Amino acid sequence: MDAIKAIRARCSIREFKDTPVDRKVIEEIVDCGRLAPTARKEEPWEFVVVTDKDTLAAMADITDHGKFIKSSACAIAIFCRDTKYYLEDGSAATENILVSAASLGLGSCWVAGDKKHYCAKIAELLGAPPVSKLVSIVALGYPAKDPQPLEKRPLKDVLHWEKF
Amino acid sequence: MDAIKAIRARCSIREFKDTPVDRKVIEEIVDCGRLAPTARKEEPWEFVVVTDKDTLAAMADITDHGKFIKSSACAIAIFCRDTKYYLEDGSAATENILVSAASLGLGSCWVAGDKKHYCAKIAELLGAPPVSKLVSIVALGYPAKDPQPLEKRPLKDVLHWEKF
Repeated sequence: MDAIKAIRARCSIREFKDTPVDRKVIEEIVDCGRLAPTARKEEPWEFVVVTDKDTLAAMADITDHGKFIKSSACAIAIFCRDTKYYLEDGSAATENILVSAASLGLGSCWVAGDKKHYCAKIAELLGAPPVSKLVSIVALGYPAKDPQPLEKRPLKDVLHWEKF
Repeated sequence: MDAIKAIRARCSIREFKDTPVDRKVIEEIVDCGRLAPTARKEEPWEFVVVTDKDTLAAMADITDHGKFIKSSACAIAIFCRDTKYYLEDGSAATENILVSAASLGLGSCWVAGDKKHYCAKIAELLGAPPVSKLVSIVALGYPAKDPQPLEKRPLKDVLHWEKF
């Protein structure tokens, strides 16, 4: 799908069909995360892809607002080393994952990681080093319903020419 | 351009042709920023597009590693309100801008904002409220040379199945 069309189509999907996502498709999506911009060439990211139903249920249980992870086809936990710009890098990688997923007809939802009380629990569950920064968890799957992107603040309100 | 192709084509461009970017193209790119995911529906972002040569030179001068902003066709400063997830939201919006720009044949480079000593100076120059968080500045223009994406850590090193 065209890039701008995919960016427009992307929205948070929390209900998924009971259809697995092909391993090659997941690899292509994670590859897009890997190709995100990174400050100072740090590439601080590691991507843990979970498809095991029990682990998905455990992740859902640990989060506050990610209970739907349980019904996703897979979840991608994005961890970073603690670099100065890990949150920018990890967020750009997350967005690449969401946009590439949308372009392939998949639904996704960004579940917060950074600043959440449960980071260490997710790291422990997935065997990540305790010092890892959990930037996000992306729930992924084929959408159960037609995606409906939310209305956002109009362009004229957020775009300022030359001065704020 | 296809979304995954655009994500793969995107790389940091710091040398630009002396060709202006059409206003409608800039609007489409900023619109992609506006459509980024946002935690708790905060949409904390404001996008200041600078095309004025004197202001571009002043911005370049203020930054540490953004001297090439001076020769860009335009720069987009991305400011956010100070919400809990402003850096995730602003970084996702920045990445949408970079990917949509690449899909339209434009070159871009992400110049750091957050945590930089010059945030307040950029805010003052552009008339943003002093409390604004500068997430990034994106330099934009038609690339002077063929883009050459950097080699990154291979997929097999960053993708972990089920466990870290």
